[in-house]
Amino acid sequence: MIQQLLPKLVLTDIDGVWTDAGMYYDQTGNEWKKFNTSDSAGVLFCKHLSIPVGIITGEDTAIVARRAEKLNIDFLHQGIQDKLKTANELCARLGISLADVAYIGDDLGDVPLLKAVGFSAAPANAQEYIRNMVHFSTQKSGGEGAFREFVEEILHRAGALNSVLTHYQIG
Amino acid sequence: MIQQLLPKLVLTDIDGVWTDAGMYYDQTGNEWKKFNTSDSAGVLFCKHLSIPVGIITGEDTAIVARRAEKLNIDFLHQGIQDKLKTANELCARLGISLADVAYIGDDLGDVPLLKAVGFSAAPANAQEYIRNMVHFSTQKSGGEGAFREFVEEILHRAGALNSVLTHYQIG
Amino acid sequence: MIQQLLPKLVLTDIDGVWTDAGMYYDQTGNEWKKFNTSDSAGVLFCKHLSIPVGIITGEDTAIVARRAEKLNIDFLHQGIQDKLKTANELCARLGISLADVAYIGDDLGDVPLLKAVGFSAAPANAQEYIRNMVHFSTQKSGGEGAFREFVEEILHRAGALNSVLTHYQIG
Amino acid sequence: MIQQLLPKLVLTDIDGVWTDAGMYYDQTGNEWKKFNTSDSAGVLFCKHLSIPVGIITGEDTAIVARRAEKLNIDFLHQGIQDKLKTANELCARLGISLADVAYIGDDLGDVPLLKAVGFSAAPANAQEYIRNMVHFSTQKSGGEGAFREFVEEILHRAGALNSVLTHYQIG
Repeated sequence: MIQQLLPKLVLTDIDGVWTDAGMYYDQTGNEWKKFNTSDSAGVLFCKHLSIPVGIITGEDTAIVARRAEKLNIDFLHQGIQDKLKTANELCARLGISLADVAYIGDDLGDVPLLKAVGFSAAPANAQEYIRNMVHFSTQKSGGEGAFREFVEEILHRAGALNSVLTHYQIG
Repeated sequence: MIQQLLPKLVLTDIDGVWTDAGMYYDQTGNEWKKFNTSDSAGVLFCKHLSIPVGIITGEDTAIVARRAEKLNIDFLHQGIQDKLKTANELCARLGISLADVAYIGDDLGDVPLLKAVGFSAAPANAQEYIRNMVHFSTQKSGGEGAFREFVEEILHRAGALNSVLTHYQIG
Repeated sequence: MIQQLLPKLVLTDIDGVWTDAGMYYDQTGNEWKKFNTSDSAGVLFCKHLSIPVGIITGEDTAIVARRAEKLNIDFLHQGIQDKLKTANELCARLGISLADVAYIGDDLGDVPLLKAVGFSAAPANAQEYIRNMVHFSTQKSGGEGAFREFVEEILHRAGALNSVLTHYQIG
Repeated sequence: MIQQLLPKLVLTDIDGVWTDAGMYYDQTGNEWKKFNTSDSAGVLFCKHLSIPVGIITGEDTAIVARRAEKLNIDFLHQGIQDKLKTANELCARLGISLADVAYIGDDLGDVPLLKAVGFSAAPANAQEYIRNMVHFSTQKSGGEGAFREFVEEILHRAGALNSVLTHYQIG
């Protein structure tokens, strides 16, 4: 495989990517999401390579704010209807282009951004018509470590995965 | 396949259809349901085609009321023992007949309504004897996007799916 | 298949049978179990045939008490270490013998009772050495409707399932 | 198979081993983990053979403290960044060596300890590069009873499983 360059920014959707799309509601108006600690290694690997990580999600919850803080996410954009616009503004701020961006999303609201970035991905649980339009479909579903698989694929395609794993005494 | 007409009303059960039938109880009397954000596209597609969407469920919780409000559901009927009666009243109010209705349900309480509507469906996790009596069994189980699959099937059979997806820049 | 008699009492374990053995803990000492509304039809079928249903569980929670009340369970025994003793006492009270009892359980604490009853069952997720000692292993795992499958099997073996389903306009 | 000696200490990670790596967050800052009651038999079997059981985890929650108390875990070490150091200190205290220890872990933070113990294991859901470095990969995933399978494998390899099961009237 011809090596790809590492992206200069990794962006991700949340519901259906970091979760299995489950929206837990209770009787009092409280709400839950189920993240997967395995995905935290994906963030860690990006940080190890000095690639900033950003979240762009349509929902707006304290749940995601807390998760982003726990994992030291660089950019958090919630309540976003036009994800492509937000990504464009972020690129302008960083002095990069969308071709330098890798993005993983799973549904309708992600389509314009998935079409615009340099490397696009969708989790296994996304609709077939979403998976058909991206560069890479993960084998794992959202909430099962799809984000980590996405990051490892990026590193693998850039020939950087083994050295990162070696840093963690693996291989 | 011979094209079907679009229904004039889409009705849906909740537990076992919008959820995997899971009833989460805690020590204090609070209760949870786990919805799937993927199903929200099913509602969106109906709205795009001006087909009203209604919920008819035997349970009566603030959980479902909140989910219905979030997704702008047109008709919400909770605590219903006789779903066929409720659907009949709704049809009378809208000046349509049950033949114009599509309904998805998964269990005993859904049987009379499933038998009466123009297009009936059940999710993959329903008992075999329920799935055997409906026009369409979804491949997805309840809580995995079965409602969205039901709506996409309706649109597909009416030849309307591709134009809806094109609206979202897909295909 | 030679028809079996209907049992005079149906007993069931909870964790791993009515649930997938999941114990949800939070930071405050609260606790959750995830039931499956599909199992409620199992209780309904027993009631339709005037077979009382009892729960015998080692845990002692308000969670199970509330679920038992919701489903109108006839006998609720929580915090039980010796399930065989409890079942014997219940049989004495009802003037029946353990040979008249059907029981489903999934683990170590269920073994003595599983060995003693007239019809024993374990869900698909039980250890192989538990499933090897029972009359019937359900295809469904605990929390996926294993209790309902257990009840339907009992009715099927007694030639009573079709008439019950017919009551619900099925078949 | 040549019999192995029983370990003198069984250590375990939590997230991804006793759970499916799911991190449930709500809107208020509360947090959940989902344990599996099936794993409690693994602890019971160790206690039956007088093998102490210890938890070493990077997270630090009241959730795990409560689970450890419920199951009478002998050693609880939370918020640990260097698991190998903690295990070494524990061994020194007990007058044993790491060769006498069995450990199950699933991810990056577990690697140094997995490499150092006498018997190492990882659950089915661990990354392939983790499973490739351990003595034993469980067939079950974390949260599905992987810890119990790990303990039963240890007992099986030492020829002690059947006598333990016989104690519970199995086999």
